[in-house]
Amino acid sequence: MIEPFNDEYFMKKAFAEAVQAFDEGEIPVGAVVVSKGKIIARAHNLTETLNDVTAHAEMQAITAAANLLGGKYLNDCTLYVTLEPCVMCAGALGWSQIGKIVYGASDEKRGFKKFAAKALHPKTEIVSGIFETECAELLQEFFQKKRK
Amino acid sequence: MIEPFNDEYFMKKAFAEAVQAFDEGEIPVGAVVVSKGKIIARAHNLTETLNDVTAHAEMQAITAAANLLGGKYLNDCTLYVTLEPCVMCAGALGWSQIGKIVYGASDEKRGFKKFAAKALHPKTEIVSGIFETECAELLQEFFQKKRK
Repeated sequence: MIEPFNDEYFMKKAFAEAVQAFDEGEIPVGAVVVSKGKIIARAHNLTETLNDVTAHAEMQAITAAANLLGGKYLNDCTLYVTLEPCVMCAGALGWSQIGKIVYGASDEKRGFKKFAAKALHPKTEIVSGIFETECAELLQEFFQKKRK
Repeated sequence: MIEPFNDEYFMKKAFAEAVQAFDEGEIPVGAVVVSKGKIIARAHNLTETLNDVTAHAEMQAITAAANLLGGKYLNDCTLYVTLEPCVMCAGALGWSQIGKIVYGASDEKRGFKKFAAKALHPKTEIVSGIFETECAELLQEFFQKKRK
């Protein structure tokens, strides 16, 4: 059976956001929030453009999704993000009580799993590794380009 | 020697922000950011008003301070906040590389010290317990009032 709206489908949308960040000279991380099979928020990292360390893709996506839903809890939502959330974003996702998080690449240096393992709500489901290689390679390409 | 602009002075300003949050029906946490002896940002918790779990006092203060300074790093700044920062806010403060954090009351349930001890930049200085009782009592009063 064909499942067009699966985790891969939505991660591709998050990846498209990451590519947009790349094109804007931002560390390429993208995210979408899905509720009842529909994308209700899209965002990409804007820390350089907005001159604001809090402007990670996930933070903007949480704010936008809550704004659209009219409630600050995201229990029925899934966040798709190309990179493992950092401590800040995991803390925010914890407050939001988001239902599920799907991420692409792992982040050994800054990821929440290592530095804030209990930041999320206990009921939040986590899936990792969807398009891991593509998400990681986009980041590597960005940092290689920056070093030149 | 009289030192009018010491930690107590600035914590009183953060406390005034917390009182404002209280009056607005928000969990009463307030913050100010100080750079070179001057307050460059003031904020209080607005999660209910903005319907946004990311609208903690510290997050808004970081964004406002960076906006005023025109750079996203706050190495020369001190954050005064009435409650120990949560995981999200500590993560954000880590990214900002803030020079010093002074907080009032401890937060055993949600504070970063327990859940993300390494979230801050290694050079960030931490001072705690300034007007601890007053900051904690304001929070207790808020939650007691809510339960009625």
